[in-house]
Amino acid sequence: MERITARENQNIKRVVRLCASRRARCESGQFVAEGVKLCREAHLAGCDVDELYMTAEVCEKHGEKLAPLIKDAGAVYEITDDIAHKISDTVTPQGIFAVCRAMEEALDESTLPSGRYIALESLQNPGNLGTILRSADAFGVDGVILTEDCPDIFSPKVLRSTMGSAFRVKTCRTKNLAALLRKLSQTHVTYAAALSEGAVSLSRCCLEGDIVVAVGNEGGGLSRGVIDACEACVIIEMRGGAESLNAAVAASVILWEMSK
Amino acid sequence: MERITARENQNIKRVVRLCASRRARCESGQFVAEGVKLCREAHLAGCDVDELYMTAEVCEKHGEKLAPLIKDAGAVYEITDDIAHKISDTVTPQGIFAVCRAMEEALDESTLPSGRYIALESLQNPGNLGTILRSADAFGVDGVILTEDCPDIFSPKVLRSTMGSAFRVKTCRTKNLAALLRKLSQTHVTYAAALSEGAVSLSRCCLEGDIVVAVGNEGGGLSRGVIDACEACVIIEMRGGAESLNAAVAASVILWEMSK
Repeated sequence: MERITARENQNIKRVVRLCASRRARCESGQFVAEGVKLCREAHLAGCDVDELYMTAEVCEKHGEKLAPLIKDAGAVYEITDDIAHKISDTVTPQGIFAVCRAMEEALDESTLPSGRYIALESLQNPGNLGTILRSADAFGVDGVILTEDCPDIFSPKVLRSTMGSAFRVKTCRTKNLAALLRKLSQTHVTYAAALSEGAVSLSRCCLEGDIVVAVGNEGGGLSRGVIDACEACVIIEMRGGAESLNAAVAASVILWEMSK
Repeated sequence: MERITARENQNIKRVVRLCASRRARCESGQFVAEGVKLCREAHLAGCDVDELYMTAEVCEKHGEKLAPLIKDAGAVYEITDDIAHKISDTVTPQGIFAVCRAMEEALDESTLPSGRYIALESLQNPGNLGTILRSADAFGVDGVILTEDCPDIFSPKVLRSTMGSAFRVKTCRTKNLAALLRKLSQTHVTYAAALSEGAVSLSRCCLEGDIVVAVGNEGGGLSRGVIDACEACVIIEMRGGAESLNAAVAASVILWEMSK
Protein backbone atom coordinates (compact mmCIF):
# COMPACT_ATOMS: atom_id res chain seq x y z
CA MET A 1 0.00 0.00 0.00
CA GLU A 2 1.50 3.30 -1.10
CA ARG A 3 1.81 5.91 1.63
CA ILE A 4 0.98 9.55 0.91
CA THR A 5 2.38 12.12 3.31
CA ALA A 6 2.57 15.28 1.20
CA ARG A 7 -0.40 17.63 1.29
CA GLU A 8 0.53 18.74 -2.22
CA ASN A 9 0.24 15.23 -3.66
CA GLN A 10 -1.64 15.31 -6.98
CA ASN A 11 -4.07 12.56 -5.97
CA ILE A 12 -5.01 14.36 -2.78
CA LYS A 13 -5.53 17.60 -4.66
CA ARG A 14 -7.90 15.81 -7.01
CA VAL A 15 -9.84 14.24 -4.11
CA VAL A 16 -10.22 17.67 -2.51
CA ARG A 17 -11.49 19.05 -5.81
CA LEU A 18 -14.00 16.19 -6.17
CA CYS A 19 -15.33 17.01 -2.68
CA ALA A 20 -15.58 20.73 -3.32
CA SER A 21 -16.73 20.99 -6.90
CA ARG A 22 -19.90 19.72 -8.52
CA ARG A 23 -18.32 20.42 -11.86
CA ALA A 24 -15.32 18.21 -11.08
CA ARG A 25 -17.71 15.41 -10.10
CA CYS A 26 -19.70 15.88 -13.28
CA GLU A 27 -16.66 15.86 -15.55
CA SER A 28 -15.04 12.80 -14.01
CA GLY A 29 -18.21 10.88 -13.17
CA GLN A 30 -16.72 10.29 -9.72
CA PHE A 31 -17.59 11.32 -6.17
CA VAL A 32 -16.00 10.91 -2.74
CA ALA A 33 -17.59 8.92 0.09
CA GLU A 34 -16.22 9.70 3.56
CA GLY A 35 -16.37 7.58 6.69
CA VAL A 36 -16.52 3.83 7.30
CA LYS A 37 -20.28 3.56 6.95
CA LEU A 38 -20.64 5.60 3.76
CA CYS A 39 -17.67 3.96 2.03
CA ARG A 40 -19.08 0.52 2.78
CA GLU A 41 -22.60 1.51 1.72
CA ALA A 42 -21.31 2.85 -1.62
CA HIS A 43 -19.48 -0.42 -2.24
CA LEU A 44 -22.42 -2.58 -1.13
CA ALA A 45 -24.73 -0.60 -3.41
CA GLY A 46 -22.54 -1.55 -6.35
CA CYS A 47 -20.52 1.61 -6.96
CA ASP A 48 -17.06 0.93 -8.41
CA VAL A 49 -14.39 2.16 -5.98
CA ASP A 50 -11.51 3.61 -8.02
CA GLU A 51 -9.35 4.72 -5.10
CA LEU A 52 -9.45 4.19 -1.35
CA TYR A 53 -7.57 6.47 1.08
CA MET A 54 -7.21 5.39 4.73
CA THR A 55 -5.20 6.31 7.79
CA ALA A 56 -3.32 3.48 9.50
CA GLU A 57 -5.63 3.89 12.47
CA VAL A 58 -8.83 3.31 10.52
CA CYS A 59 -7.27 0.32 8.78
CA GLU A 60 -6.29 -1.24 12.10
CA LYS A 61 -9.60 -0.52 13.79
CA HIS A 62 -11.98 -1.51 10.97
CA GLY A 63 -9.77 -3.72 8.79
CA GLU A 64 -12.03 -6.74 8.95
CA LYS A 65 -15.18 -4.82 8.12
CA LEU A 66 -13.36 -3.06 5.29
CA ALA A 67 -11.72 -6.16 3.77
CA PRO A 68 -14.17 -6.59 0.84
CA LEU A 69 -13.89 -2.90 0.02
CA ILE A 70 -10.07 -2.97 0.16
CA LYS A 71 -10.07 -6.04 -2.05
CA ASP A 72 -12.27 -4.49 -4.73
CA ALA A 73 -10.77 -1.00 -4.74
CA GLY A 74 -8.76 -0.07 -7.85
CA ALA A 75 -5.99 1.39 -5.68
CA VAL A 76 -5.46 1.73 -1.93
CA TYR A 77 -3.39 4.46 -0.28
CA GLU A 78 -2.39 5.09 3.30
CA ILE A 79 -2.74 8.72 4.34
CA THR A 80 -1.76 10.73 7.41
CA ASP A 81 -4.17 12.39 9.86
CA ASP A 82 -3.06 15.71 8.46
CA ILE A 83 -4.18 14.73 4.96
CA ALA A 84 -7.46 13.33 6.29
CA HIS A 85 -8.13 16.75 7.81
CA LYS A 86 -7.24 18.41 4.53
CA ILE A 87 -9.76 16.32 2.57
CA SER A 88 -12.57 16.30 5.11
CA ASP A 89 -14.95 19.13 5.90
CA THR A 90 -15.82 17.60 9.28
CA VAL A 91 -14.06 18.56 12.50
CA THR A 92 -13.14 15.00 13.44
CA PRO A 93 -12.70 12.97 10.25
CA GLN A 94 -12.74 9.18 10.59
CA GLY A 95 -9.81 9.00 8.16
CA ILE A 96 -11.26 7.03 5.25
CA PHE A 97 -12.29 8.26 1.80
CA ALA A 98 -13.42 6.30 -1.25
CA VAL A 99 -13.33 7.79 -4.74
CA CYS A 100 -16.31 6.08 -6.35
CA ARG A 101 -17.77 6.01 -9.79
CA ALA A 102 -21.28 7.46 -9.75
CA MET A 103 -23.86 5.07 -11.12
CA GLU A 104 -25.84 6.20 -14.14
CA GLU A 105 -28.68 8.39 -13.04
CA ALA A 106 -31.36 5.78 -12.65
CA LEU A 107 -34.39 7.68 -13.83
CA ASP A 108 -34.86 9.56 -17.08
CA GLU A 109 -37.65 12.11 -17.03
CA SER A 110 -38.77 11.23 -20.55
CA THR A 111 -39.39 7.59 -19.59
CA LEU A 112 -40.30 7.83 -15.92
CA PRO A 113 -42.01 4.55 -14.99
CA SER A 114 -45.35 4.59 -13.23
CA GLY A 115 -45.00 4.64 -9.48
CA ARG A 116 -44.89 6.81 -6.41
CA TYR A 117 -42.69 9.90 -6.32
CA ILE A 118 -41.85 12.97 -4.34
CA ALA A 119 -40.67 16.02 -6.30
CA LEU A 120 -38.48 18.71 -4.73
CA GLU A 121 -38.37 22.20 -6.20
CA SER A 122 -35.27 24.36 -5.68
CA LEU A 123 -34.34 22.88 -2.31
CA GLN A 124 -31.32 24.80 -0.98
CA ASN A 125 -29.93 23.09 2.08
CA PRO A 126 -27.75 20.01 1.39
CA GLY A 127 -28.56 18.57 4.83
CA ASN A 128 -32.28 18.83 4.15
CA LEU A 129 -31.89 17.11 0.78
CA GLY A 130 -29.87 14.30 2.38
CA THR A 131 -32.43 13.86 5.13
CA ILE A 132 -35.26 13.68 2.59
CA LEU A 133 -33.41 11.04 0.54
CA ARG A 134 -32.94 9.05 3.76
CA SER A 135 -36.68 9.30 4.52
CA ALA A 136 -37.56 8.42 0.91
CA ASP A 137 -35.42 5.31 1.29
CA ALA A 138 -36.92 4.43 4.69
CA PHE A 139 -40.51 4.92 3.57
CA GLY A 140 -39.99 3.25 0.22
CA VAL A 141 -41.06 5.54 -2.63
CA ASP A 142 -40.08 4.72 -6.22
CA GLY A 143 -38.03 7.82 -6.75
CA VAL A 144 -37.24 11.44 -5.95
CA ILE A 145 -37.59 14.06 -8.68
CA LEU A 146 -35.27 17.06 -8.30
CA THR A 147 -35.16 20.37 -10.10
CA GLU A 148 -31.75 21.20 -11.58
CA ASP A 149 -31.00 23.81 -8.92
CA CYS A 150 -31.26 21.35 -6.00
CA PRO A 151 -27.85 20.45 -4.49
CA ASP A 152 -25.86 17.62 -6.06
CA ILE A 153 -26.71 14.40 -4.19
CA PHE A 154 -23.04 13.40 -4.36
CA SER A 155 -21.77 16.46 -2.50
CA PRO A 156 -20.14 15.52 0.82
CA LYS A 157 -22.80 17.27 2.91
CA VAL A 158 -25.72 15.62 1.15
CA LEU A 159 -24.05 12.19 1.19
CA ARG A 160 -23.32 12.46 4.91
CA SER A 161 -26.92 13.21 5.85
CA THR A 162 -28.31 10.46 3.61
CA MET A 163 -26.42 7.84 5.66
CA GLY A 164 -26.06 5.82 2.46
CA SER A 165 -29.56 6.24 1.09
CA ALA A 166 -28.18 8.29 -1.82
CA PHE A 167 -26.86 5.01 -3.24
CA ARG A 168 -30.25 3.32 -3.07
CA VAL A 169 -32.91 5.91 -3.83
CA LYS A 170 -33.54 6.54 -7.51
CA THR A 171 -33.45 10.18 -8.51
CA CYS A 172 -34.42 12.10 -11.61
CA ARG A 173 -33.26 15.63 -12.48
CA THR A 174 -35.58 17.86 -14.43
CA LYS A 175 -35.12 21.28 -16.03
CA ASN A 176 -38.83 21.96 -16.04
CA LEU A 177 -40.75 20.49 -13.13
CA ALA A 178 -44.06 22.10 -14.12
CA ALA A 179 -43.94 20.53 -17.59
CA LEU A 180 -42.99 17.14 -16.15
CA LEU A 181 -45.86 17.31 -13.65
CA ARG A 182 -48.32 18.21 -16.39
CA LYS A 183 -47.15 15.18 -18.34
CA LEU A 184 -47.27 12.91 -15.28
CA SER A 185 -50.80 14.13 -14.50
CA GLN A 186 -52.03 11.94 -17.36
CA THR A 187 -51.03 8.80 -15.47
CA HIS A 188 -50.47 9.92 -11.86
CA VAL A 189 -52.38 11.84 -9.23
CA THR A 190 -50.32 15.01 -8.74
CA TYR A 191 -50.38 17.05 -5.54
CA ALA A 192 -48.65 20.30 -4.66
CA ALA A 193 -47.79 20.70 -0.98
CA ALA A 194 -49.01 24.27 -0.69
CA LEU A 195 -51.44 26.40 1.24
CA SER A 196 -54.11 27.27 -1.27
CA GLU A 197 -57.85 27.64 -1.50
CA GLY A 198 -59.44 24.20 -1.57
CA ALA A 199 -56.26 22.46 -0.35
CA VAL A 200 -56.90 19.02 1.13
CA SER A 201 -55.59 18.12 4.59
CA LEU A 202 -52.80 15.57 4.38
CA SER A 203 -54.51 13.29 6.89
CA ARG A 204 -57.69 13.23 4.78
CA CYS A 205 -56.00 12.94 1.43
CA CYS A 206 -56.00 9.80 -0.72
CA LEU A 207 -52.37 8.94 -1.39
CA GLU A 208 -52.85 5.53 -2.96
CA GLY A 209 -51.70 4.35 -6.38
CA ASP A 210 -49.45 6.20 -8.78
CA ILE A 211 -48.82 9.61 -7.33
CA VAL A 212 -46.42 12.55 -7.29
CA VAL A 213 -46.30 15.04 -4.42
CA ALA A 214 -44.32 18.24 -5.07
CA VAL A 215 -42.66 20.00 -2.12
CA GLY A 216 -41.14 23.48 -2.23
CA ASN A 217 -38.01 24.97 -0.77
CA GLU A 218 -37.04 26.35 2.62
CA GLY A 219 -37.82 29.97 2.02
CA GLY A 220 -40.56 30.34 -0.53
CA GLY A 221 -42.38 27.03 -0.92
CA LEU A 222 -43.49 25.98 -4.40
CA SER A 223 -43.57 28.27 -7.43
CA ARG A 224 -46.91 29.28 -8.93
CA GLY A 225 -46.10 27.33 -12.10
CA VAL A 226 -45.62 24.07 -10.23
CA ILE A 227 -48.74 24.58 -8.10
CA ASP A 228 -50.80 25.24 -11.24
CA ALA A 229 -49.39 22.13 -12.93
CA CYS A 230 -50.72 19.89 -10.13
CA GLU A 231 -54.26 18.61 -9.88
CA ALA A 232 -54.73 19.54 -6.24
CA CYS A 233 -53.03 21.07 -3.24
CA VAL A 234 -52.35 19.29 0.02
CA ILE A 235 -51.47 20.89 3.35
CA ILE A 236 -49.95 19.52 6.52
CA GLU A 237 -52.31 20.73 9.24
CA MET A 238 -50.61 22.74 11.98
CA ARG A 239 -52.29 23.79 15.18
CA GLY A 240 -49.53 25.55 17.07
CA GLY A 241 -47.55 28.77 16.79
CA ALA A 242 -44.97 27.87 14.14
CA GLU A 243 -45.62 29.33 10.70
CA SER A 244 -44.04 26.45 8.88
CA LEU A 245 -42.11 23.22 9.21
CA ASN A 246 -38.51 22.49 8.37
CA ALA A 247 -38.47 21.46 4.68
CA ALA A 248 -37.03 18.01 5.41
CA VAL A 249 -39.68 17.44 8.09
CA ALA A 250 -42.50 18.50 5.77
CA ALA A 251 -41.30 16.18 3.00
CA SER A 252 -40.75 13.33 5.48
CA VAL A 253 -44.23 13.63 7.00
CA ILE A 254 -45.65 13.42 3.46
CA LEU A 255 -43.43 10.40 2.69
CA TRP A 256 -44.63 8.78 5.92
CA GLU A 257 -48.27 9.27 4.92
CA MET A 258 -47.51 7.94 1.42
CA SER A 259 -46.01 4.80 2.97
CA LYS A 260 -49.12 3.82 4.89
CA MET B 1 -27.49 55.50 19.12
CA GLU B 2 -23.93 54.74 20.23
CA ARG B 3 -21.68 53.37 17.49
CA ILE B 4 -19.26 50.52 18.21
CA THR B 5 -16.39 50.05 15.79
CA ALA B 6 -13.73 48.32 17.90
CA ARG B 7 -13.67 44.52 17.82
CA GLU B 8 -12.21 44.59 21.33
CA ASN B 9 -15.15 46.51 22.77
CA GLN B 10 -16.21 44.97 26.12
CA ASN B 11 -19.88 44.70 25.13
CA ILE B 12 -19.03 42.85 21.93
CA LYS B 13 -16.75 40.50 23.81
CA ARG B 14 -19.60 39.70 26.19
CA VAL B 15 -22.04 39.09 23.30
CA VAL B 16 -19.56 36.69 21.69
CA ARG B 17 -19.20 34.88 25.01
CA LEU B 18 -22.99 34.61 25.38
CA CYS B 19 -23.16 33.02 21.91
CA ALA B 20 -20.36 30.58 22.54
CA SER B 21 -20.80 29.54 26.13
CA ARG B 22 -23.72 27.79 27.76
CA ARG B 23 -22.20 28.64 31.11
CA ALA B 24 -22.15 32.36 30.31
CA ARG B 25 -25.83 32.13 29.34
CA CYS B 26 -26.64 30.27 32.54
CA GLU B 27 -24.81 32.73 34.79
CA SER B 28 -26.27 35.86 33.22
CA GLY B 29 -29.73 34.51 32.42
CA GLN B 30 -29.32 36.03 28.96
CA PHE B 31 -29.04 34.71 25.42
CA VAL B 32 -28.44 36.20 21.98
CA ALA B 33 -31.00 36.13 19.17
CA GLU B 34 -29.57 36.71 15.69
CA GLY B 35 -31.37 37.86 12.56
CA VAL B 36 -34.44 40.01 11.96
CA LYS B 37 -36.93 37.18 12.35
CA LEU B 38 -35.50 35.68 15.54
CA CYS B 39 -35.00 39.06 17.24
CA ARG B 40 -38.61 40.00 16.50
CA GLU B 41 -39.92 36.60 17.60
CA ALA B 42 -38.07 36.84 20.92
CA HIS B 43 -39.56 40.28 21.52
CA LEU B 44 -43.06 39.23 20.45
CA ALA B 45 -42.87 36.21 22.74
CA GLY B 46 -42.28 38.55 25.67
CA CYS B 47 -38.54 38.25 26.25
CA ASP B 48 -36.97 41.43 27.67
CA VAL B 49 -34.40 42.79 25.22
CA ASP B 50 -31.50 44.22 27.23
CA GLU B 51 -29.33 45.24 24.30
CA LEU B 52 -29.83 45.47 20.55
CA TYR B 53 -26.91 45.58 18.10
CA MET B 54 -27.55 46.50 14.47
CA THR B 55 -25.63 47.51 11.38
CA ALA B 56 -26.75 50.73 9.66
CA GLU B 57 -27.83 48.61 6.70
CA VAL B 58 -30.24 46.41 8.67
CA CYS B 59 -31.66 49.48 10.39
CA GLU B 60 -32.32 51.18 7.09
CA LYS B 61 -33.77 48.12 5.42
CA HIS B 62 -35.97 46.81 8.26
CA GLY B 63 -36.38 49.93 10.44
CA GLU B 64 -40.15 49.95 10.27
CA LYS B 65 -40.54 46.29 11.14
CA LEU B 66 -38.01 46.69 13.96
CA ALA B 67 -39.48 49.88 15.45
CA PRO B 68 -41.29 48.21 18.40
CA LEU B 69 -38.18 46.20 19.22
CA ILE B 70 -35.92 49.27 19.04
CA LYS B 71 -38.35 51.17 21.27
CA ASP B 72 -38.44 48.47 23.96
CA ALA B 73 -34.74 47.56 23.95
CA GLY B 74 -32.77 48.61 27.04
CA ALA B 75 -29.95 49.96 24.85
CA VAL B 76 -29.38 50.14 21.10
CA TYR B 77 -25.96 50.14 19.43
CA GLU B 78 -24.87 50.53 15.85
CA ILE B 79 -22.20 48.04 14.80
CA THR B 80 -20.02 47.60 11.73
CA ASP B 81 -20.17 44.65 9.30
CA ASP B 82 -16.85 43.53 10.68
CA ILE B 83 -18.29 43.25 14.18
CA ALA B 84 -21.40 41.48 12.88
CA HIS B 85 -19.08 38.87 11.36
CA LYS B 86 -17.20 38.60 14.63
CA ILE B 87 -20.38 37.86 16.63
CA SER B 88 -22.11 35.61 14.11
CA ASP B 89 -21.32 32.00 13.34
CA THR B 90 -23.05 32.23 9.97
CA VAL B 91 -21.26 33.03 6.73
CA THR B 92 -23.55 35.91 5.79
CA PRO B 93 -24.87 37.51 8.98
CA GLN B 94 -27.91 39.77 8.64
CA GLY B 95 -26.27 42.21 11.05
CA ILE B 96 -28.70 42.26 13.97
CA PHE B 97 -28.32 40.73 17.42
CA ALA B 98 -30.55 41.05 20.48
CA VAL B 99 -29.30 40.22 23.96
CA CYS B 100 -32.44 38.89 25.59
CA ARG B 101 -33.38 37.79 29.06
CA ALA B 102 -34.35 34.11 29.05
CA MET B 103 -37.80 33.52 30.46
CA GLU B 104 -38.08 31.29 33.48
CA GLU B 105 -38.06 27.69 32.41
CA ALA B 106 -41.74 27.11 32.04
CA LEU B 107 -42.06 23.54 33.24
CA ASP B 108 -40.81 22.04 36.48
CA GLU B 109 -40.47 18.28 36.44
CA SER B 110 -41.83 17.94 39.98
CA THR B 111 -45.09 19.65 39.03
CA LEU B 112 -45.49 18.77 35.35
CA PRO B 113 -49.13 19.38 34.46
CA SER B 114 -51.15 16.70 32.74
CA GLY B 115 -50.93 16.92 28.97
CA ARG B 116 -49.14 15.69 25.88
CA TYR B 117 -45.34 15.57 25.77
CA ILE B 118 -42.42 14.38 23.78
CA ALA B 119 -39.26 13.47 25.72
CA LEU B 120 -35.80 13.59 24.14
CA GLU B 121 -32.94 11.57 25.60
CA SER B 122 -29.36 12.73 25.05
CA LEU B 123 -29.97 14.35 21.70
CA GLN B 124 -26.64 15.57 20.31
CA ASN B 125 -27.18 17.70 17.25
CA PRO B 126 -28.30 21.31 17.90
CA GLY B 127 -29.97 21.52 14.48
CA ASN B 128 -32.02 18.40 15.21
CA LEU B 129 -33.13 19.78 18.58
CA GLY B 130 -34.15 23.08 16.98
CA THR B 131 -36.07 21.29 14.23
CA ILE B 132 -37.91 19.15 16.80
CA LEU B 133 -38.88 22.24 18.84
CA ARG B 134 -40.22 23.80 15.62
CA SER B 135 -42.27 20.67 14.88
CA ALA B 136 -43.48 20.52 18.51
CA ASP B 137 -44.66 24.11 18.12
CA ALA B 138 -46.30 23.42 14.74
CA PHE B 139 -48.08 20.28 15.89
CA GLY B 140 -49.06 21.72 19.26
CA VAL B 141 -47.86 19.49 22.10
CA ASP B 142 -47.90 20.79 25.67
CA GLY B 143 -44.18 20.54 26.17
CA VAL B 144 -40.83 18.99 25.37
CA ILE B 145 -38.93 17.11 28.09
CA LEU B 146 -35.15 17.16 27.69
CA THR B 147 -32.43 15.25 29.49
CA GLU B 148 -29.71 17.46 30.93
CA ASP B 149 -27.19 16.47 28.27
CA CYS B 150 -29.31 17.73 25.35
CA PRO B 151 -27.99 21.00 23.81
CA ASP B 152 -29.03 24.29 25.36
CA ILE B 153 -32.11 25.55 23.53
CA PHE B 154 -30.68 29.09 23.66
CA SER B 155 -27.48 28.24 21.79
CA PRO B 156 -27.28 30.10 18.45
CA LYS B 157 -27.50 26.90 16.37
CA VAL B 158 -30.58 25.59 18.16
CA LEU B 159 -32.30 28.99 18.11
CA ARG B 160 -31.67 29.39 14.39
CA SER B 161 -33.25 26.08 13.49
CA THR B 162 -36.28 26.63 15.74
CA MET B 163 -37.21 29.72 13.67
CA GLY B 164 -38.61 31.24 16.87
CA SER B 165 -40.37 28.19 18.27
CA ALA B 166 -37.88 28.08 21.17
CA PHE B 167 -39.69 31.12 22.59
CA ARG B 168 -43.09 29.43 22.46
CA VAL B 169 -42.62 25.74 23.23
CA LYS B 170 -42.49 24.88 26.91
CA THR B 171 -39.52 22.77 27.90
CA CYS B 172 -38.56 20.83 31.01
CA ARG B 173 -35.05 19.63 31.85
CA THR B 174 -34.67 16.44 33.83
CA LYS B 175 -31.66 14.76 35.41
CA ASN B 176 -33.36 11.39 35.45
CA LEU B 177 -35.71 10.74 32.55
CA ALA B 178 -36.42 7.13 33.54
CA ALA B 179 -37.58 8.19 37.03
CA LEU B 180 -39.70 10.99 35.58
CA LEU B 181 -41.32 8.60 33.10
CA ARG B 182 -42.08 6.09 35.87
CA LYS B 183 -43.77 8.87 37.83
CA LEU B 184 -45.67 10.14 34.77
CA SER B 185 -46.84 6.59 34.01
CA GLN B 186 -49.30 6.93 36.90
CA THR B 187 -51.21 9.63 35.01
CA HIS B 188 -50.02 9.37 31.39
CA VAL B 189 -49.64 6.69 28.76
CA THR B 190 -45.89 6.40 28.25
CA TYR B 191 -44.32 5.13 25.03
CA ALA B 192 -40.69 4.53 24.13
CA ALA B 193 -39.88 4.96 20.44
CA ALA B 194 -37.77 1.82 20.16
CA LEU B 195 -37.55 -1.39 18.23
CA SER B 196 -38.46 -4.06 20.77
CA GLU B 197 -40.43 -7.25 21.00
CA GLY B 198 -44.12 -6.42 21.11
CA ALA B 199 -43.60 -2.86 19.87
CA VAL B 200 -46.75 -1.30 18.43
CA SER B 201 -46.70 0.28 14.96
CA LEU B 202 -47.03 4.06 15.13
CA SER B 203 -49.91 4.04 12.65
CA ARG B 204 -51.86 1.57 14.78
CA CYS B 205 -51.05 3.12 18.12
CA CYS B 206 -53.54 5.03 20.28
CA LEU B 207 -51.99 8.42 20.94
CA GLU B 208 -55.01 10.12 22.52
CA GLY B 209 -55.23 11.77 25.92
CA ASP B 210 -52.37 12.44 28.31
CA ILE B 211 -49.30 10.88 26.83
CA VAL B 212 -45.50 10.99 26.77
CA VAL B 213 -43.46 9.57 23.89
CA ALA B 214 -39.72 9.22 24.52
CA VAL B 215 -37.32 9.46 21.56
CA GLY B 216 -33.62 8.57 21.65
CA ASN B 217 -30.54 10.14 20.16
CA GLU B 218 -28.89 10.07 16.76
CA GLY B 219 -26.47 7.25 17.38
CA GLY B 220 -27.81 4.88 19.95
CA GLY B 221 -31.53 5.43 20.35
CA LEU B 222 -33.05 5.20 23.83
CA SER B 223 -31.26 3.77 26.85
CA ARG B 224 -32.46 0.51 28.38
CA GLY B 225 -33.51 2.36 31.54
CA VAL B 226 -35.82 4.70 29.66
CA ILE B 227 -37.32 1.89 27.55
CA ASP B 228 -38.02 -0.14 30.71
CA ALA B 229 -39.61 2.86 32.40
CA CYS B 230 -42.22 3.17 29.62
CA GLU B 231 -45.39 1.10 29.40
CA ALA B 232 -44.96 0.15 25.77
CA CYS B 233 -42.73 0.58 22.74
CA VAL B 234 -43.76 2.17 19.49
CA ILE B 235 -41.99 1.89 16.14
CA ILE B 236 -42.19 3.91 12.97
CA GLU B 237 -42.67 1.29 10.26
CA MET B 238 -40.06 1.42 7.50
CA ARG B 239 -40.25 -0.58 4.32
CA GLY B 240 -37.19 0.56 2.41
CA GLY B 241 -33.44 0.18 2.65
CA ALA B 242 -32.57 2.79 5.29
CA GLU B 243 -31.78 1.41 8.73
CA SER B 244 -33.10 4.41 10.54
CA LEU B 245 -34.50 7.90 10.20
CA ASN B 246 -32.90 11.21 11.02
CA ALA B 247 -33.67 11.89 14.72
CA ALA B 248 -35.55 15.12 13.98
CA VAL B 249 -37.63 13.35 11.32
CA ALA B 250 -38.47 10.47 13.67
CA ALA B 251 -39.58 12.84 16.44
CA SER B 252 -41.53 14.99 13.96
CA VAL B 253 -43.42 12.04 12.46
CA ILE B 254 -44.41 11.05 16.02
CA LEU B 255 -45.47 14.64 16.79
CA TRP B 256 -47.52 14.66 13.57
CA GLU B 257 -49.31 11.46 14.59
CA MET B 258 -49.89 12.90 18.08
CA SER B 259 -51.49 15.98 16.54
CA LYS B 260 -54.18 14.07 14.65
